[in-house]
Amino acid sequence: MVLLTDGVTNVGTAKTAVNLIRYKPEECVAILDPSNAGKTSRDIFGIGNVPIIRALAEGKDANVIAIGIAPAGGKLSPTLRAAILEAISLGMEVLSGLHTFVSDDPELADAARRHNVRIFDVRKNTERDVTQRKNINPQCLRIHTVGHDCNVGKMVVSVEVANALRKRGHDAKFVATGQTGIMIEGDGCPIDAVVADFINGAAEKLVLQNQHHEILLFEGQGSIIHPRYSAVTLGLLHGCMPQGLILCYEMGRDTVYGLDQVKLPSLQKFKDLYELNASTQHPCRVIAIGINGRKFSDAEVEEERKRIEGELGLPAADELRHGADRLAEAVISNRESLLAAK
Amino acid sequence: MVLLTDGVTNVGTAKTAVNLIRYKPEECVAILDPSNAGKTSRDIFGIGNVPIIRALAEGKDANVIAIGIAPAGGKLSPTLRAAILEAISLGMEVLSGLHTFVSDDPELADAARRHNVRIFDVRKNTERDVTQRKNINPQCLRIHTVGHDCNVGKMVVSVEVANALRKRGHDAKFVATGQTGIMIEGDGCPIDAVVADFINGAAEKLVLQNQHHEILLFEGQGSIIHPRYSAVTLGLLHGCMPQGLILCYEMGRDTVYGLDQVKLPSLQKFKDLYELNASTQHPCRVIAIGINGRKFSDAEVEEERKRIEGELGLPAADELRHGADRLAEAVISNRESLLAAK
Repeated sequence: MVLLTDGVTNVGTAKTAVNLIRYKPEECVAILDPSNAGKTSRDIFGIGNVPIIRALAEGKDANVIAIGIAPAGGKLSPTLRAAILEAISLGMEVLSGLHTFVSDDPELADAARRHNVRIFDVRKNTERDVTQRKNINPQCLRIHTVGHDCNVGKMVVSVEVANALRKRGHDAKFVATGQTGIMIEGDGCPIDAVVADFINGAAEKLVLQNQHHEILLFEGQGSIIHPRYSAVTLGLLHGCMPQGLILCYEMGRDTVYGLDQVKLPSLQKFKDLYELNASTQHPCRVIAIGINGRKFSDAEVEEERKRIEGELGLPAADELRHGADRLAEAVISNRESLLAAK
Repeated sequence: MVLLTDGVTNVGTAKTAVNLIRYKPEECVAILDPSNAGKTSRDIFGIGNVPIIRALAEGKDANVIAIGIAPAGGKLSPTLRAAILEAISLGMEVLSGLHTFVSDDPELADAARRHNVRIFDVRKNTERDVTQRKNINPQCLRIHTVGHDCNVGKMVVSVEVANALRKRGHDAKFVATGQTGIMIEGDGCPIDAVVADFINGAAEKLVLQNQHHEILLFEGQGSIIHPRYSAVTLGLLHGCMPQGLILCYEMGRDTVYGLDQVKLPSLQKFKDLYELNASTQHPCRVIAIGINGRKFSDAEVEEERKRIEGELGLPAADELRHGADRLAEAVISNRESLLAAK
């Protein structure tokens, strides 16, 4: 696939591209971004070795064009539209996680029909079920990654901890709830695109579909105080009924991503808010802290790790730097007590 | 209009019909419900004097058919479909607040075209804006009704308090966020039908549209612990940025409506949860308690009122029994301190 980034170089906004490169490196042929042509994904995003190209014709062998950015509101920009139209005319299939459905665009849909290519709108859904709270497997451990903001690494922690648990022989499953996670895992539900009354029910359905696994790692969304996305966060938190939470945050971030005028409270405050809201459904507590230290040195992150472990009395790790063992161990060592809590 | 209740006699499930009779009595010609034909709305719902008819032909002069029930999930039953189809064939317009859009039903839409009648799907919306937190009027007092459950009277409290404030000369506006409220007020947003990522933004938009008024009474939805609808509740709570809350509950209810296995926490716990979650956006506190005592006697409700005022230290009233003066006074007496809170 060729990744479209629409000139975006911010790792947060281009998180779909970044994580496709991280988890599907063998499928990423090139990034289309004329303004950075000649560089690689490592130069721009600090990950992988995917070449950045000026024109689609340079992306040899690619048969899919994937939209690699997640702009607030999820709209289709004119440059994205033009690139998608060209890709379709070259016979490429389209993979999109935008809120604006590519397949609903008359010109693009018509072009796809003419060139006989498929459009996959990952966020398109027909969720219409409400929560029932029946037939929940009490032996399935549900761990949910929550955060102090968007774009702090909740999905990456979920994937890495699930992988680390599987390496230790556990039957762990990453449950994707966002566009990028679904592209990586191949299943899941685009929870932020579900109609309001059915958010909780869509999350509960993911529990019912996956609770034959021993441990679920439920990808979190937004944050419980997020002025834009808190509805998604709470619906998901209540719908997936976690017994345990991993609280994720980015070092150095003190305002809401995209809303600089809104200050973030302390991690302790977030821990309290998540535990209080989650526990109205099911006894639930934070068992570990995921640190995103991408803007800091090894020494700085190590200092932060010690500080936060002391402050909150919980194991903490930057899983991309330290590995996910520490977080996976927290899941295993708390398993019995989390399942036993009433 | 003729109200369709599909045989439902539960006041909660038929709340759209009940509140159209309460606030638009001059427009309600009849209720279509063959199983209760010959009775009146007072016999079934304890309100108004709307005759219940067996067949549409008995609803003389009616030119609108309104769906008066709100089933969980909002789907169109076969009997509702048949009644709507007949109404269309008689030239009546259709007013629906269901999640399943009448205008998306090929047969009904086709019939409407042939008979040249309009279908109004109140929940249909194209909300696609995220919260911006800009240009919020600090002099507009935003009061939000919240509850311990669905169907406890949040909309009625909002309407009654707005009316009581206007009678005292204040420029107060009821801001509708649900299907019934929108049918009554003629504007608002069906917040529970908005796509997840845009719930908070849709509520903020209602603030921006209405903040030229002195006092807004923002209709609440669901409850902050509701297994099904908490996403809607928190998105609305954060989006409308209330400085003050009126906490509404129904006497005698101790489990979630429609989910008997889920117990409701104490009112004190609800007060704490709402204040904690609301205050992450803007300083906010509960200023009064709305009691729904419909299943109890005057003496029992009076005893409950005294008990709850003592317990929570806040004024309380069953607005349909005592009038809304006590609640309106709480708004006025707290106005300065709520606006001054930082």
